[in-house]
Amino acid sequence: MSKPTETERCIESLIAVFQKYSGKDGNSYQLSKTEFLTFMNTELAAFTKNQKDPGVLDRMMKKLDLNSDGQLDFQEFLNLIGGLALACHESFLKSSQKRF
Amino acid sequence: MSKPTETERCIESLIAVFQKYSGKDGNSYQLSKTEFLTFMNTELAAFTKNQKDPGVLDRMMKKLDLNSDGQLDFQEFLNLIGGLALACHESFLKSSQKRF
Repeated sequence: MSKPTETERCIESLIAVFQKYSGKDGNSYQLSKTEFLTFMNTELAAFTKNQKDPGVLDRMMKKLDLNSDGQLDFQEFLNLIGGLALACHESFLKSSQKRF
Repeated sequence: MSKPTETERCIESLIAVFQKYSGKDGNSYQLSKTEFLTFMNTELAAFTKNQKDPGVLDRMMKKLDLNSDGQLDFQEFLNLIGGLALACHESFLKSSQKRF
């Protein structure tokens, strides 16, 4: 086996992180609301700490839970990561446009 | 600054990898067809090597390019990573169901 590439490592990380948090209670392959909050407050604390509105995580969970079953499956979890990555990428684009 | 979490590192990696490959020619924030092929053959060679059908990358590019502009933007790139992660996750679920 050769060393995994950065992209392969990232795909593995996404799966490992989802399995780690979704395995904490009940259905192993779904993030419950409690698991989602644990994930956000642990893995994305830099983001959650900056939110002044205490309802923001509740609203995020509702918006991500596309089939409204009160759980996030892996696809719904990927939409969260994708949304955050997109927001970071766009803020990078804006700041680089300002600079040049 | 505290050490980034696994999820934060992953979000950073996705952005860095996209910028690395999309910056090779023309529009810096879009993956051209050539850049997409370079990305796939470098970062995901383990996947592309196993494809017996030489048209598979062409068809993937067409399918991912939702607005058919011949380029992949960051959102379209994230759909690729998400699709691959989902396929890996589902094959893991299948193999663990067989095992238990």
